[in-house]
Amino acid sequence: MSDQFAPEYIRAIAPYQAGKPISEVAREFGLDENRIIKLASNENPLGMPESAKKAIANEVGETGRYPDANGFALKKVIGERYGIAQDWITLGNGSNDIIELAARTFVQQGQSVVFSEYSFLVYALVAKAIGAKGIQVPSKEYGHDLDAMLKAITADTRLLFLANPNNPTGTFLQPADIEAFLDKVPSRVVVVIDEAYNEYLDSSIQYDSTDWVKKYPNLLVSRTFSKAYGLAGLRVGFGLAHPELTGLLNRVRQPFNVNALAQAAAIAALNDQVFLTKSAKINADGYRFLTQSFDEMGLEYVPSYGNFVLVKVGNDDGAGSRVNLELLKKGIIVRPVNAYGLPKWLRISIGLPEENRAFISALKEVLA
Amino acid sequence: MSDQFAPEYIRAIAPYQAGKPISEVAREFGLDENRIIKLASNENPLGMPESAKKAIANEVGETGRYPDANGFALKKVIGERYGIAQDWITLGNGSNDIIELAARTFVQQGQSVVFSEYSFLVYALVAKAIGAKGIQVPSKEYGHDLDAMLKAITADTRLLFLANPNNPTGTFLQPADIEAFLDKVPSRVVVVIDEAYNEYLDSSIQYDSTDWVKKYPNLLVSRTFSKAYGLAGLRVGFGLAHPELTGLLNRVRQPFNVNALAQAAAIAALNDQVFLTKSAKINADGYRFLTQSFDEMGLEYVPSYGNFVLVKVGNDDGAGSRVNLELLKKGIIVRPVNAYGLPKWLRISIGLPEENRAFISALKEVLA
Repeated sequence: MSDQFAPEYIRAIAPYQAGKPISEVAREFGLDENRIIKLASNENPLGMPESAKKAIANEVGETGRYPDANGFALKKVIGERYGIAQDWITLGNGSNDIIELAARTFVQQGQSVVFSEYSFLVYALVAKAIGAKGIQVPSKEYGHDLDAMLKAITADTRLLFLANPNNPTGTFLQPADIEAFLDKVPSRVVVVIDEAYNEYLDSSIQYDSTDWVKKYPNLLVSRTFSKAYGLAGLRVGFGLAHPELTGLLNRVRQPFNVNALAQAAAIAALNDQVFLTKSAKINADGYRFLTQSFDEMGLEYVPSYGNFVLVKVGNDDGAGSRVNLELLKKGIIVRPVNAYGLPKWLRISIGLPEENRAFISALKEVLA
Repeated sequence: MSDQFAPEYIRAIAPYQAGKPISEVAREFGLDENRIIKLASNENPLGMPESAKKAIANEVGETGRYPDANGFALKKVIGERYGIAQDWITLGNGSNDIIELAARTFVQQGQSVVFSEYSFLVYALVAKAIGAKGIQVPSKEYGHDLDAMLKAITADTRLLFLANPNNPTGTFLQPADIEAFLDKVPSRVVVVIDEAYNEYLDSSIQYDSTDWVKKYPNLLVSRTFSKAYGLAGLRVGFGLAHPELTGLLNRVRQPFNVNALAQAAAIAALNDQVFLTKSAKINADGYRFLTQSFDEMGLEYVPSYGNFVLVKVGNDDGAGSRVNLELLKKGIIVRPVNAYGLPKWLRISIGLPEENRAFISALKEVLA
């Protein structure tokens, strides 16, 4: 029956499989919800900052009103932070919304979108949803092969995604390599650099993509409040780009795409450097603990610059699913990455120290 | 420069003009924000129900996590209320999201979408954003001309919008007329009935569109929590349709489109019959007061079934803008409808009794 209602390219989409929420795992495995450990969705294990909770409590009385469609107050704070005017900023219902808007705004049905193997599945999905052709470029050492991506661009390519750091592998592209790449990409191709995990970068390798945004009129940098800022449940992200690109994105954006509480909480979180520093510290410590444990256990992993680690849990293609199921039975939720073509691997979000310890302990039992 | 970045149909879109937020009007006219009266966006003048505020306070501790992508708990409550299974429900970031999803899921570039003159501008906008052809059918007495809409359907029409009650005119289609219409629409055309204002209908004319959803596999009914339920700032709406349509919509839907606090608040609001009844009562009383005042002032208005009234404030095409500006100077925000082709009219959202009185008093001064 669906044959008659939607184009072939819509019917061909396999629905996105989100990580299981804790309540669902509890139901499915008969576990106590309060004892479940979730290291599956690259959330901040500290939860939402107190500053954001206060901002929500202050704003909730006004929430019978529509949100500010222009996001004036939030854009002001973002603009000040990044030294950029408000007409360079697009607000999104999470950075997922920015990624989707980019495809819908810059690409027509039948044109093509370039992205890397082992990068965020949503890039391929947003291309499919508009009937565009996704060109997936084979990965190099689990990261982007920039030379190959450049060669993969065809006459009908309108959009290209880079992720830095990359999810689900955690790889990092050197700023100099990105800049050399941007110099070579044809100017008609919009490049999105998805920097969802940027705030986890050590200051020694941090870079300023705002300079690139000013330099390259075909560049869109996306950021999110869902990771280091701890606001995943609220849905807020943003894009930085030249006013020409920004104006086009805002023609397609739903006017009330970012809810009022998310706008208020994001303003608070952006100003909460103490929380951000604490989040980065917990993450760095957790990363050290997890990777040392993997080393001791003789498990291969991909060195990660994000708040997660990709670890190889077996040598057969059933390994990821099998180990994942055993971990679920023990009340630990991690992320299988079969859909990424990585069936021997699991992606582990870095948690609180006690969560990381519980995970390693459970993993040792499962693999014994 | 934008020429090279986006297709012609995107560049042709004029950005949606949302109602001015109170803070912006205060800035622009140098007014005290606390004394401004906003009757512009068909919001519930009672604000958010206390039950929803409590639900938010209970949920906020978990909001560092992503929302439930499947909306299990909210769909359960909606399903029970409407006697429908969960695979018939699509959650949206407001019903705006459902409307946009319908266009993106069911219509390809170059195909056509049918809607009525003087109906919600977003129908035309979502068609433009996918490069579809919008077919606007002339209105009959400020409402839908169903016979003309039927005749306007062409071989490439894939989607048709009805709004009941209609925004911005407030007109109401009789259920028997809708059903006769649904019987005649070609089965390949998906019909969306936008029922954003349904909860304001008097029980004497209330109807059950869920029965139609079960009967017509090409029907999608959309509802919102932004109006009578008082949750405009949170962004939550839903669509009811046959599992075939619902499955297709959910292939295109962003998995985390509805934020966690919105899901929690919507569950509370849906169960809060006391608030809903109070909202409908305030609205009915306000409608009576406003229309009696218009009668006394000799002003033409369109009889409304929503939480707003369209009133004619002059006989020249500058009247709406002129009266709107004078009202703004007095701190009263209403909605000009020039963009709808109604430059002699203003749309007034029904407020609290004191807000309605202040508006009428100001309007009398302006028109004197």
